[in-house]
Amino acid sequence: MNFCSDCGRPVSLLVPPDDNRMRHVCDHCGTIHYQNPKMVIGSIPVWDLARESGETKVLLCRRAIEPRHGYWTLPAGFMENEETTGEAAQRETMEEAGARIELQGLYSLLNVPHVHQVHLFYRARLLDLDFAAGTESLEVKLFAEHQIPWDEIAFPTVSHTLKFFFSDLAAHRSGASFGFHTMDIRKRMRD
Amino acid sequence: MNFCSDCGRPVSLLVPPDDNRMRHVCDHCGTIHYQNPKMVIGSIPVWDLARESGETKVLLCRRAIEPRHGYWTLPAGFMENEETTGEAAQRETMEEAGARIELQGLYSLLNVPHVHQVHLFYRARLLDLDFAAGTESLEVKLFAEHQIPWDEIAFPTVSHTLKFFFSDLAAHRSGASFGFHTMDIRKRMRD
Repeated sequence: MNFCSDCGRPVSLLVPPDDNRMRHVCDHCGTIHYQNPKMVIGSIPVWDLARESGETKVLLCRRAIEPRHGYWTLPAGFMENEETTGEAAQRETMEEAGARIELQGLYSLLNVPHVHQVHLFYRARLLDLDFAAGTESLEVKLFAEHQIPWDEIAFPTVSHTLKFFFSDLAAHRSGASFGFHTMDIRKRMRD
Repeated sequence: MNFCSDCGRPVSLLVPPDDNRMRHVCDHCGTIHYQNPKMVIGSIPVWDLARESGETKVLLCRRAIEPRHGYWTLPAGFMENEETTGEAAQRETMEEAGARIELQGLYSLLNVPHVHQVHLFYRARLLDLDFAAGTESLEVKLFAEHQIPWDEIAFPTVSHTLKFFFSDLAAHRSGASFGFHTMDIRKRMRD
């Protein structure tokens, strides 16, 4: 940030009075421009073949955009103003995977403080199999647990959420309920 | 937003290519300035007198700032970059109530889409009684359920979280575990 978005004059980086953090403050009009973390919201779209084969499959998207072009992810993206977290999960699942879902509750919250993000995933039931890759996906495909391309998952928040999910799924078949999972993912230090 | 924070030239409100929402886009350098919801994070600081009187008290702060000056709230505030949701809850509880807490898990997530906010509250155990009003609080005080000033609570997200909490607390005494609560708070339509 170099200029004030209110008046167009240069900003300085300083600690305002009654504050304890550096902020971008306009030299001219004094507006303080706060910067805050963003939410990335997604879903775990599940197709349950329990009756036929006992298998549960999850819908993944292969990314057509950077970062992590060509890697697999759960459908997810930045939450927009004037929507709820649930609406964001449904919208992103439609945009990236062309998939209609029924939300089944918030399932994971993962902090990624070094990129100023919080990722949230909902468990969801796929309503039909008429999904299709959106403009940000190369392909969209259902995976059983043993088919998940673990080495080609785009983001740690996605691989952790998938691991939580399949672990809970096994317990769920023995009668346990799905939990709610939180996790902090810190930047890996260099060796 | 009137000017580009990158180059200082005017911005226009338009739908960029491959997008479906109005964004502030710089007329000169083309930068798209996305605006996203902010997270407000707080805690429910609990002092448990179960052994002495069977009572559980919650710490509330009376606001010294607008909006809702003079009204009571749980300690909470905007999450900052480079911190986790848990760190934000602890920092805000220290800043507003001078209180040291141990977090006991994420407890509520409340969408407030018309103000572009998501509010999150953690259950927390007060570590001692050495709390004191911070610069944004007029006073800080412990309340048992029957003492809560329901008509003087600053925000619906706080009153709903307190109601969830005291309801769960009653069930908890009979052996149930505290849940995780989500809720959407829509703008009230005019009559």
